[in-house]
Amino acid sequence: MGFVYGIDIGGTNIKLGIVDSGGGVVKEGMIPTGAEEGPRAVTARISKWFDSCKKNIPDIDRVGVGCAGLVDSKKGILFSSPNLPGWSNVELGKLFSEELNLPAIIDNDANCAAYGEFRLGAGKGVKHFICVTLGTGVGAGLIINGRLHRGFSGQAGEIGHTLIKVEGRLCGCGNRGCLEAYIGSSAIVERAKKMLEQESGNSLAGVEQLSVKDITKAAEDGNEIAIRTLEKTGWYFGIGLVNAVHIINPEVIAVGGGVSGAGDLILNPTRESFAEHVMNDIFLDVRIVTAQLGNKASFLGAAMLAFDHKQED
Amino acid sequence: MGFVYGIDIGGTNIKLGIVDSGGGVVKEGMIPTGAEEGPRAVTARISKWFDSCKKNIPDIDRVGVGCAGLVDSKKGILFSSPNLPGWSNVELGKLFSEELNLPAIIDNDANCAAYGEFRLGAGKGVKHFICVTLGTGVGAGLIINGRLHRGFSGQAGEIGHTLIKVEGRLCGCGNRGCLEAYIGSSAIVERAKKMLEQESGNSLAGVEQLSVKDITKAAEDGNEIAIRTLEKTGWYFGIGLVNAVHIINPEVIAVGGGVSGAGDLILNPTRESFAEHVMNDIFLDVRIVTAQLGNKASFLGAAMLAFDHKQED
Repeated sequence: MGFVYGIDIGGTNIKLGIVDSGGGVVKEGMIPTGAEEGPRAVTARISKWFDSCKKNIPDIDRVGVGCAGLVDSKKGILFSSPNLPGWSNVELGKLFSEELNLPAIIDNDANCAAYGEFRLGAGKGVKHFICVTLGTGVGAGLIINGRLHRGFSGQAGEIGHTLIKVEGRLCGCGNRGCLEAYIGSSAIVERAKKMLEQESGNSLAGVEQLSVKDITKAAEDGNEIAIRTLEKTGWYFGIGLVNAVHIINPEVIAVGGGVSGAGDLILNPTRESFAEHVMNDIFLDVRIVTAQLGNKASFLGAAMLAFDHKQED
Repeated sequence: MGFVYGIDIGGTNIKLGIVDSGGGVVKEGMIPTGAEEGPRAVTARISKWFDSCKKNIPDIDRVGVGCAGLVDSKKGILFSSPNLPGWSNVELGKLFSEELNLPAIIDNDANCAAYGEFRLGAGKGVKHFICVTLGTGVGAGLIINGRLHRGFSGQAGEIGHTLIKVEGRLCGCGNRGCLEAYIGSSAIVERAKKMLEQESGNSLAGVEQLSVKDITKAAEDGNEIAIRTLEKTGWYFGIGLVNAVHIINPEVIAVGGGVSGAGDLILNPTRESFAEHVMNDIFLDVRIVTAQLGNKASFLGAAMLAFDHKQED
């Protein structure tokens, strides 16, 4: 077995790597996405990057692409992406296989991250596994019975849009009460701001364009409002996980994505809330852990999917 | 391939059948459960029933048992059952294989019903399938990738205890806001009673021990309160299904159990609510249909599981 190209197309940056069958990264890089140039130009820039560094690597067999958005992995089509404006109904699979002259598989970035963690990280050897990505959006990839589960229309794992509160907070998707409306990064920032209004003199009050990173840093320094913000977020997250666990009953849930940088400051209250809301102690077998591959999960997972591309669902 | 015994142990009755590999029922019967006699005596009565009618059926290979409650199908143990008081940590698998002198498999009744519908009914040939049982309790069995999905602790499919309203109605499980607290049969009856309080002279007002059956019958006769009761129930059910679909993305959802007797009176508002709350039109591919096997689903599914007992998860 030779090497594959792994690609993770995000709204801001594209992560790239040449990966061996054991998940070893031979070359690695990052280029700006520049989505406004359009898919063809972006694909050409990616191709150029690989051209510049593939010397001395003889056997490149395939390319795996993870992409934020609604993806039909069977047809290799990106339907739409909130992070890639104007990219709708793009035949990404075809585009990449033509440009790189290699068989290409594409999938949703959350699926790729889950597959990466399953093959190389927090879900290694775990038969029933959920990998949740916490960030602006809240998504998940599912491994069921040792296979990536995409579902009938290829859209399984939309945990961020499970409803936890009928007629609750308005979500970016237009519905009310989605988990994402309570634990997505803008919900977290809003929660902190609301608490700050009620207390003067807090160090966070003056921060311009407050971010989850700022809140996490403050919480690490013992800032009470920041700690309570993450606690409340974890409380909601635990409820979201209870719903997923009552349906799927996985062995391990790994939590990745930017917001997961808060580590146990968010995961401990998540675990407590999970234990509080679960219907039966049997479900407490489930382990809730931090994902291990950081921001490499998606391109590594895309690469592993390219290796294991028989793993179709 | 010969025949198997299929058994469905409910709180009130036990349904029994001798089934061929195509799902054909050669003999069929029902006996009272009499749970208070204890598992050994009940198993002996079941054995006696089969003895009385197995003549002329030479090759009985196995027995499949569906049972309400928390079941560990791998170990063949019934942990506990709200409908079988006193039956806790019962080695049902061992008990049946000793009594009937046949290899026995046991599983949760919702899993058996789902498997029955998958093999012989509304989920025939469907790769990703959910079968929801609506009754006093609300449960589900999942078929994922053509296999019964039990999950890590064997408890997957507890859709009735997914939370749809944080801090909402108290559920029988002790939590608040579970789907079952909004669509279980006692919630439906309570909903109707509340509406009846606000309107005098309704034909349902005088009914003693009002049941979902009474409400369904009245709705069929055009009773507005009964219709609205089922509509509101369907509205909540649609939200519960949205959560399951956003996670699993199945092709077909079949709805069985006593409450499903209301048919489209409950399923049409369910479909409307589903369409209203789903995050993306892609998920509208999912078909929500009535289960086909009625109250035979569990014993037929148990029988089919016995035939296909390699289908372990």
